[in-house]
Amino acid sequence: MRTQVAIIGGGPAGLLLSRLLHRQGIDSVVLESRDRDYVEHRQRAGMLEQGTTDALRECGAGERLDREGLVHHGLELRFGGAGHRVPITDLTGRTVTIYAQTEIVKDLVALRRADGGDVRFEAEVVGLDASAPSVTFRSGGRTHTLECDYIAGCDGFHGVSRPAVPGLRTFSREYPFAWLGILADVPPSTEELIYANHDRGFALHSLRSPKVSRLYLQVSPDEDIAVWPDSRIWDELATRFATDDGWTLREGPVTDKSITPMRSFVAEPMRHDRLFLAGDAAHIVPPTGAKGLNLAVSDVIILARALAERYGSGSETLLDGYSAACLRRVWRAEHFSYWMTTLLHTDPAASTFERRLQRSHLEYVASSAAAATSLAENYAGLPIAG
Amino acid sequence: MRTQVAIIGGGPAGLLLSRLLHRQGIDSVVLESRDRDYVEHRQRAGMLEQGTTDALRECGAGERLDREGLVHHGLELRFGGAGHRVPITDLTGRTVTIYAQTEIVKDLVALRRADGGDVRFEAEVVGLDASAPSVTFRSGGRTHTLECDYIAGCDGFHGVSRPAVPGLRTFSREYPFAWLGILADVPPSTEELIYANHDRGFALHSLRSPKVSRLYLQVSPDEDIAVWPDSRIWDELATRFATDDGWTLREGPVTDKSITPMRSFVAEPMRHDRLFLAGDAAHIVPPTGAKGLNLAVSDVIILARALAERYGSGSETLLDGYSAACLRRVWRAEHFSYWMTTLLHTDPAASTFERRLQRSHLEYVASSAAAATSLAENYAGLPIAG
Repeated sequence: MRTQVAIIGGGPAGLLLSRLLHRQGIDSVVLESRDRDYVEHRQRAGMLEQGTTDALRECGAGERLDREGLVHHGLELRFGGAGHRVPITDLTGRTVTIYAQTEIVKDLVALRRADGGDVRFEAEVVGLDASAPSVTFRSGGRTHTLECDYIAGCDGFHGVSRPAVPGLRTFSREYPFAWLGILADVPPSTEELIYANHDRGFALHSLRSPKVSRLYLQVSPDEDIAVWPDSRIWDELATRFATDDGWTLREGPVTDKSITPMRSFVAEPMRHDRLFLAGDAAHIVPPTGAKGLNLAVSDVIILARALAERYGSGSETLLDGYSAACLRRVWRAEHFSYWMTTLLHTDPAASTFERRLQRSHLEYVASSAAAATSLAENYAGLPIAG
Repeated sequence: MRTQVAIIGGGPAGLLLSRLLHRQGIDSVVLESRDRDYVEHRQRAGMLEQGTTDALRECGAGERLDREGLVHHGLELRFGGAGHRVPITDLTGRTVTIYAQTEIVKDLVALRRADGGDVRFEAEVVGLDASAPSVTFRSGGRTHTLECDYIAGCDGFHGVSRPAVPGLRTFSREYPFAWLGILADVPPSTEELIYANHDRGFALHSLRSPKVSRLYLQVSPDEDIAVWPDSRIWDELATRFATDDGWTLREGPVTDKSITPMRSFVAEPMRHDRLFLAGDAAHIVPPTGAKGLNLAVSDVIILARALAERYGSGSETLLDGYSAACLRRVWRAEHFSYWMTTLLHTDPAASTFERRLQRSHLEYVASSAAAATSLAENYAGLPIAG
């Protein structure tokens, strides 16, 4: 079996890469260890930078996104009992769009199926060779070998790709909190996202659709979800979102509930020989900045351009610059995600001095056009160079 | 002996307050424990916000400042072997001015002497009563009592005023580094200040005049100055300021050499009954943001306005709002000073992840107009409200 680019992982990064390559006339095979239903339904991120929606549209995956995606022009910072809007579009000329990762995956799987793309579910990669490039995988009870020119490792933090890069340098940070997230069948209580800082901890009011709310609470990293019955979650959310003018939170049936740890992680370089890492396989950000999915998308956009140049003119210049081009953007997102996380969460170990600094920082972002623009331009996403 | 406002401390805060009150027809007596020569020659800060120079000019202390002060329109961030200019005036419409604190003190002492002001040196305050307001001090071998309406505590971090406030809440932070500072009789190697981040530590190239350079090196807080002969200082400065295009540092005779610890400190509230704290008596910032002197000036501007209202209309509204008005500005300066300090210094305990975040942050400030404006507007000083 042979293809030009073997893509390990059928999440949004791998599927989008496969689609982008197809548009350039480059063949690929996507190998995903899980089944299609699992991949299309796992709850993940849902806030897309304008560069991400532009890329999805340009490759023909924008039809349902344009119909169902919720375009946002701002967000709210809430602290000290009052809300402060950051007018993202006024400050940056850009928008962000709410459209769940699961929906992007459905759209891309359907597109690849329609254009004859080779996307294999329940195909578990068990080995790879980055020098005489090939990928060995198990599917249908048998072992197969896929020969290729290049391998794209889009298989996430726990995948097999990253361990195949020798001499990796890794950088990481743990945080003293996690997110307890719920999906609830209730119309959102807000049109724009609310990022709330409260002495009891951070809370985020996000949304999935006009009928589905997505809400998060900062909890301890070792929190037991069993001690959080729905009623306690709603009470705690109401407390953290409370304003002096009596804002109210609508409650509804909780359909999903989980705890996500917070972590920062970067592996360098993102290339070894013919193997290229992309997305969570190479880096993780805490979710506060909504950067994880968007970084994965910019990685594969940069990789697709580089492969198009290689198969077009034969030049490997962009491929050789892939890791450095991605990492500049990765570190910017890592810094922004760390910044948003520390700005908004309540660190149980913070000194009273640090708590006061945090409040002054929040007041500054809420009152300075320069500081708000800095938040907004990172949130809406800096240009994708490479 | 009686006056309207007893001012403890004859540094820039106490002297400026005395001058501002005089312009409003309010009597004061300044009590300074040191002698005049000491006060006029101790080396301190020298970077004035535009609000500070405006205030000095408005109260008639601007003549020599306008003649000798060096107006700056930008500063340089230097890292990774290259310089990046932050064009402060282009970004904010404001300027900063180099004019040493010792010169301000000389100007203000001369002004107060010329207008018959009562400024007493070697007058050591040994007690005060904030309720039936009076100050007891020793001078010329005798003890005196100064009755007054109000007491201004402008006597610095180690003064007697702050301990006289019961129930103070204090906030503080120590840093794992200090500044080794020198004065050198050599024309500055740069027209604008250079803030350099280097793996070996922070360095700052400042200046006092066209013929005198002021330079600083980050050192350990317990550093022994004896291990820093001049030649080692110049070598280390040259290393930290080195650029890829061969920038050179001019060397000259070192006329002053000292190590200053870095500390953040805030005491709340800044008032107890008839006693008002101002400047270092209430708060300390690490020197990186050049905010200490400017904060002291804005405190006394706010206090002078409040006392003018009290003696004018009889209203105590501004006096009652004094502490809160100052503290908003204090916490902004505390946050900015902390931010500049952590952006630019090399923390020996930082993880490799944190070092990379710092580099990404520096590159962002050097490349984003919004981020550079945020630095510039804090550096040039936010408006003095109150």
